[in-house]
This record gives sequence, C-alpha cells and structure tokens, in this order.
Amino acid sequence: MQLALSNWSRDQRTLQERIAAELRAMILDGRLRPGERLPGSRALAADLGISRTTVVLALERLASEGYFESRARIGLFVAASPPEGALVVARVDPAGPPVAPARATPVPAPPLLPVVRRDQPRPELDFWVGRADPALFPLRAWREAVEVKLARAGSALAEYLDPQGEPSLREAIAARVGPARGIRATAEEVVVVSGSQDGINLACRMLSGGGRCFVHEDPCYRGAFELFVRSGMRRVAVPVDADGLRPEALPDQRGCLLYLTPSHQYPLGVTLSLERRRAVLDWAERTDSFVLEDDYDGDFRYDEAPLPALAAEDRTGRVLYLATFSKSLGPGLRLGYLIVPPQLCAAARAWKALMSIGVPWLEQAAMAELLLTGAFERHLRRIRLAYRARRDRLIARLEASFGPQEIQGRRGGMHVAWRLPPAAPAAEAIERAAARVGLGVYGLRSAGAWASPGHPRLRDTLLFGYAALVEAQIDAALERLAAALPRLARDAPVPA
Amino acid sequence: MQLALSNWSRDQRTLQERIAAELRAMILDGRLRPGERLPGSRALAADLGISRTTVVLALERLASEGYFESRARIGLFVAASPPEGALVVARVDPAGPPVAPARATPVPAPPLLPVVRRDQPRPELDFWVGRADPALFPLRAWREAVEVKLARAGSALAEYLDPQGEPSLREAIAARVGPARGIRATAEEVVVVSGSQDGINLACRMLSGGGRCFVHEDPCYRGAFELFVRSGMRRVAVPVDADGLRPEALPDQRGCLLYLTPSHQYPLGVTLSLERRRAVLDWAERTDSFVLEDDYDGDFRYDEAPLPALAAEDRTGRVLYLATFSKSLGPGLRLGYLIVPPQLCAAARAWKALMSIGVPWLEQAAMAELLLTGAFERHLRRIRLAYRARRDRLIARLEASFGPQEIQGRRGGMHVAWRLPPAAPAAEAIERAAARVGLGVYGLRSAGAWASPGHPRLRDTLLFGYAALVEAQIDAALERLAAALPRLARDAPVPA
Repeated sequence: MQLALSNWSRDQRTLQERIAAELRAMILDGRLRPGERLPGSRALAADLGISRTTVVLALERLASEGYFESRARIGLFVAASPPEGALVVARVDPAGPPVAPARATPVPAPPLLPVVRRDQPRPELDFWVGRADPALFPLRAWREAVEVKLARAGSALAEYLDPQGEPSLREAIAARVGPARGIRATAEEVVVVSGSQDGINLACRMLSGGGRCFVHEDPCYRGAFELFVRSGMRRVAVPVDADGLRPEALPDQRGCLLYLTPSHQYPLGVTLSLERRRAVLDWAERTDSFVLEDDYDGDFRYDEAPLPALAAEDRTGRVLYLATFSKSLGPGLRLGYLIVPPQLCAAARAWKALMSIGVPWLEQAAMAELLLTGAFERHLRRIRLAYRARRDRLIARLEASFGPQEIQGRRGGMHVAWRLPPAAPAAEAIERAAARVGLGVYGLRSAGAWASPGHPRLRDTLLFGYAALVEAQIDAALERLAAALPRLARDAPVPA
Repeated sequence: MQLALSNWSRDQRTLQERIAAELRAMILDGRLRPGERLPGSRALAADLGISRTTVVLALERLASEGYFESRARIGLFVAASPPEGALVVARVDPAGPPVAPARATPVPAPPLLPVVRRDQPRPELDFWVGRADPALFPLRAWREAVEVKLARAGSALAEYLDPQGEPSLREAIAARVGPARGIRATAEEVVVVSGSQDGINLACRMLSGGGRCFVHEDPCYRGAFELFVRSGMRRVAVPVDADGLRPEALPDQRGCLLYLTPSHQYPLGVTLSLERRRAVLDWAERTDSFVLEDDYDGDFRYDEAPLPALAAEDRTGRVLYLATFSKSLGPGLRLGYLIVPPQLCAAARAWKALMSIGVPWLEQAAMAELLLTGAFERHLRRIRLAYRARRDRLIARLEASFGPQEIQGRRGGMHVAWRLPPAAPAAEAIERAAARVGLGVYGLRSAGAWASPGHPRLRDTLLFGYAALVEAQIDAALERLAAALPRLARDAPVPA
C-alpha cells in the first residue's frame, strides 16, 4: 500500500506531526480500514523520501493513541475498533444548505462594554480609563506562586470547589480588608468572584427579585447599570456633585438596592463625604435597602489615609462590599471579591454555585500565596508610587498647558476627570480630534459610563486614565492635546 | 527601645515572618511612630534571644516594603509616611455592637446544588454522579502547558480579554466539535464559559426575556431548572421514557426555550432517538423556539460511534450546544464552551462581557495547548478505557448480586440509572441504608436532579456514578450493597 499524502508544502507542522495527522485522517474517513496492514516503516520512509526515524516516531505515536495494533514480528495493523470510534460521529450531511431562521423572534443584545471592544486599534498614547500598566504586572512572583501551587495541587484541579472560593484565599482577604479598608469580615462573609463584573452580577442575581428598585448614581458605571436594568428592576437616578452622591435625592421607598462608588466615584472620581456616608447608611436602614459598594480602585490612594469603606461603618448589615484584583494585578486573572452581610451568606453561596459553581482553583491558590507572603503588598506599594508619579505629571502638564483647571478625582484611583472650561469644545469633539492624532482621551460614554440624556458632564468632562502611561508618554500626549486645542492653551483666557 | 512581641509560641510562621509582622503591626497601630529610631539589629537579636541574621532579614524586608528608612551610618528609622498610609484606614469603632437588621426583608436563597455541598463528609465508597477520577487528571501535561503559556504570557494576564474567549482556544474547539460531535462551527460561534453552569447561566441571560417559556425534561438537571425558573420564566415539563424526551408532549406555543440532554439524559442516562431528534428540531422551527443542548458528558461513549449532537442536524439556527471540560479534565479548571447559532453571536458576546468580562486567561491558554498538541485526545482515550472497564464491572457486579436488571444509560457518560425491581425499598431508603455502611448511591434528588412531585423515578431509581471508583472499589461497594439489600439479592425472585 502506498500512502497518498496531501498538502505538505503549505503545512506548518513538523513532518512527524503531518504524517501522523494524515494517517489519522485516513483511518477516520475509511481510506485505511480496521485490520488493514500497514507498510513497514522502512518502505514508508522510502516511499515518502524522508527519514525512517520520523516515520517510526509518527507510527509509535499513533499506536500509543490506539489507531494501530502491533502484532509481534508481523507489523502494524489498523486497530479493529478505532480509538476514535467513541469520539467521531457519523458525518452529518444535512439535505441542502442551512435554512435561514426567517421567522425567528430577534434576541435583543445588550451593548458591548467598551472595555472589551476589539473592533478598533487603541490609540498610540491612550488614557484609557481603568487600565493598569501591564509592564508592572509582577509576572515573576505570579509564576512562582503558580508553580508552588501546581506542584502541590493534588486533586484540586479535578474536584468541585467551594463555590464561595478557596478557604485560604477567603481567609487572606478577610485579614486584609481590616487594615486596608476598615472592614471587619470573617472568611465566611467573603465570596471570591471572577472580577468586579461577576460580583455585580452576583449581587444582581441575589437582590434583583421581589420588586426591588435599583438606585444608582448619575452618572455611573454602565456595566452595572445594564445588568440591573435588564434584570427588570425599576430604577431611580441620584445626582452626584463634588462630594459624591446627593443623599437627599435618595428615594423614600422601601427595599431598594443602591449601587454606589463612594471611594472614587465612577466616572467622576469624587469621594463621598463622611456626612453623606452616614446619610446613606441611615437611608438604607430606614428604607430596608441594601447598598452595593463598588470599591473598584480602592487600592490606590496617594496623599492621605483613605476614608474607611462604607462597609466599615455599616452596623446593620446593609452594605455589600465589592473589590477587584483587576486594577492591582490584572484583569486576565479574573479575580475579585464580594463581602456580604451575614444574613446574605447563604444566598450568595447558593447563587454563586448556580451561576458558575465558582472561580478556577489555580488563580485563587496563587493569589492566596501572594497575599500570605506579602508579595502583593510589596507590589502594591511599588505601583502606587509609580501611579502617583504619573498622576502628578499628568496634572502638572495639564495645568502647564491650559492653566489652572478643575480636575476631580485626583486623590486616588487610576483616573482623573477634567471638567473643561466653558470655552472648550464638547468632550466628544475633543475625543474625536485627539483620536485623529493618536491620542486617547475619553468622554463619559466612551469610558463605559452611563449618564442621563443631556447630562452636563457628558459635554464638559474628559477622563484620563493615567496608570498605564509613563511620564514621557504623558508629556508627549499633553503636547498633542495642547496642539489639538489651541483655543484653550495657556495664553487663552482662563475661566474664573 | 525594647520590643514587646506577642503570641510567639502559638504562631506557625517562621521566626523572621513573625518579627516582621509584629513590627509592621507596631507601626500600623502607632506603637512605633514615624521618625522613631529602631534599636540596632545586634541589640534586637540579643533582646529577643534569636540570631542576628533573622533580625537583619526581617528588617531588610520591612525596609524594602517602605516601613523603615535607612540613614547611612546612623540606623533604621520608622518611615515618615508609612507605606501603608495609603492602604490603612483609620480604625473604625462603631458606637456599640452591630444593630441587628431586624426589619430587613429576608432575601430568599436558592437551594445549594448538591455537587458543591461541603456540610457532610463523602462516603468511603462513593458512586457520586458526574465525578471524574481525580487520580486520572493529567497533572503533568497540565503543568507543562501552564508553564509553556506563562513563560510566553507577555501582558495577557494584565489586559482585558476577549469576553468570548481566547481566539486560539475557540479555534481549537471549533476544529474539534466537527469530528467529535458532527457540528460545523466557526470560532466566532464558540463562547468559552466557566463550566456548564456558566453556560446555562449565559443562555438563561440571553433567552429568558420576552416572556419566553422554559421547557424541560422531567426529570432534569436541577442546576438548570433553578436558574431558568428563578429568572421568572413560566415552565412546561415534558416526560422522558427509554427513548428520551417525548416530543409529542412539547407545548404548542411560540418562543420557548427547551433545555435538553439528548446524548445521555440527565439523570436517567437514556439517549434521545433519531426520530425524536428530528421531531424536536421540527418543533423548534415550527414554534420559533430555541433548544439548549447540554452535552455534559458527551466525551464518553463506549460501544459505538455516538449519534451526532442535535446541533449537528440543526439547519435553522435553533440549537445552542453546551459542553464542558469538567468531566474530561476536572471541575477545578472551570472551563466549558457554548456554541451558538450565528444570529446569537452578538448577544452571547455582549452578555458574557456583562456577566464576568470572560474566563481567566491561563486556563484557556493551557487548554488550547492541550488540544493543539493532541494531549487532550490521548488523555480522553486513556480515561475512556478506564471508565468503560469500570462501567462493565459495575454492571457485571450489579447483575451478579441481584440478577438481570433494568440499567439505563450504559452506552455512555459516567453514570448509569438502576431501575429498581418492584420488590425493592424506595430509592431514598436504600440511599440512607447504604450511607450507614459508608456507601454512596443516590436517588434522583440527592444527585442534583429535579423531578415533578410524586414522579415514579424518584422512588424506583438509583444512580451510580462509576468513573471515580476502581474495579476493586466497585467490587467492595457491591458487596456492601448486596448485604444491605438481602431481600433483593440473587436468590430472591427476580421481576420479569
């Protein structure tokens, strides 16, 4: 038997792989039949004009996969029951081309979150909001932690997990949120989630039923807004000013769920004042409501000790606290945590199981290692210093180019909000002009925020995520921005 | 200054870590103040009665973390702005103990899926349904794949991902489902999910709106049942017999979502006949409905080539196909995939982003590696042979002990359903008696199935997941079972 082997020249695989693949295909499509005897490796190699070793290795591989049976001193035979008999299905040949689902009711798709859009290349100098600097990812520490944990994995990869998260990680998180955010939590109250978005989704699943009303800041993070609104909740928007959400505008109705970003309001960056925090907690207790506190970039505070988390002052079990490792490490890990009041533990655990059984084991184990060894805190300190320097440079360059400006959100986080002077073009126009010179600056909508139609901040606010740009890039970016906005540059009149 | 160090004897950490932790705590709670000078390492070591090297290492670590500043030739000083100044919040002392949320509306919790219950130890010999054998997990291949991918990770861990999944993995999956399940899919139609449960959740998010009716097998997998019902859908239960779901009982109404396990019905193990497959597809087209095909253990077929997936014969874009790597590899990876018809791609992508942004990068990258190198197919072949032998042994031993029996679902998957003879006690009673002798066999409810109240299979059916027990364990288990069920043993009259 001589084998007709196809398409070799265009194929990128090794010769051995190609021969194995071709033989496999010949068995699977019946060109080689069960029981059929194969030519010897010497003959095959001669036929094909290649080394006998290559042929032998390919045949050995196929034999180990069960395609061939070896009979001593006779040779190789196609296996009686091919190994893929249990895997390969009869070829389906539907009669004719697919029928278009002409009568199908359309399934509405939500908008795609900007953070995951891949349809356009990113600008060369990109103040993309919420992006950590990939160059600062602690890859060595992470690889070490992964290797340590995999070496001792035992059956951890092969068993169902605790849906609430690995106990070692939950313990480490509970220990950390005390000093870091003032929250007294036990490991039982911690739920490991697949990043903030999964945590919002979990809170939504737990708390969107029963006619509960969704209350949110205006503007707010669109990824939360869409989830809650699409869960069928009625909603109430509450305005935000320089001290955060205005609690006097909270609805006087029972059983609400307030989604709140008190540390560094998304998108405006302002911090909820102490007085207002108390007012929010009083409101939650009075109206029998819950608060989902999204502390998405709470690890970054540059100039003073931060206010404790809202959850730290919650005495009545009303606040769910959400944090993520996507900003401090990276979103490719898909790790975050939700801390729930004791009366919600059972619901959180059961819903997390229903949603996804839990989060993969390896990332959790490695993260616990980073927390326990102190490597995480060392990393945080390093990037906090870097991000603070970048923030300082951005503000200095903005004011050097345009004179003193109203810049919100500078005390922490990874972005600031520049409230444009009255003479400025609309934020979206600046965004477009900047994009034309390879510069990414963002109005609220492009940065993944929701705002009520006609909201003044849609027009007058530009967001700058500064964490992923080094100082030299910030300098270059501000030069381009100043050139694109000559009317606003320093020599032009500065608003009072 | 002499340091008062606490609780050393009960502490499990290394001496160096303990000293570092104690010093850190002293700085954070103000016992050591900014600018304060530390005793020399020699003096400290003498005070504490430990080696100077240990002290020096602890101090160096704290200095590298920014707690101390070194002034040349003078010594170490507590840093002027402690590094954790940006991390550590003011201590919160709420006035008095927490106030009980007395008036809070209770938040209903769904039942906890049995698969993740941790409240009882597993029996010694456990036919737990759906559990792969952890001893067969290909840990070496997985570690190699992880190391290869981490070494070339670049910024993959630090960037937002494609919410639909890594393109390399989606390509590999699309290439595999052709020969394995007869499905023609492009990578654009594949969505990587965090195991089956996440895939069901995604389908639920996409398709539960618009007043759609949830149609399900009776009995069925409870993890799907709870999700759909709790999303507010009306539901219709359709009976199952030895040929699977009975299509004549499908509701004659438009816009349904049918959740179906055609390959190996959950929990009964039966296979949907060819004729009924066509009837289901006709029904879906006629009523403008979708079908979610859950092929949860479709990798295991032992005696003949399987029927193609239902999705393989879908000509009108009505079938969503769901599969998992939890059975073939392990649930600790949290990996599976949903293949959606083209008109649902945009919705699936956007919903996956809203739910969790996507699945962690590392597991996806390693899985792609396993698929591309053929390691996954080799592993599958190995465990298929092992599981087939276990199935054979289980059935042989069951019939040796109890005579010929009605055992459903033996052609594939990882469990069989024993329909008990009329003389047998109720399944739940057997389950309890078995548990008392360290043996896990399961009625439908304990195995995570939902069945309508009073369903006869609740009483007459026991499930045996055989994949995680070796033959000797199966022998021992059947001996215990026969001893616990003397009335049914071979010498007793056998039902016709």
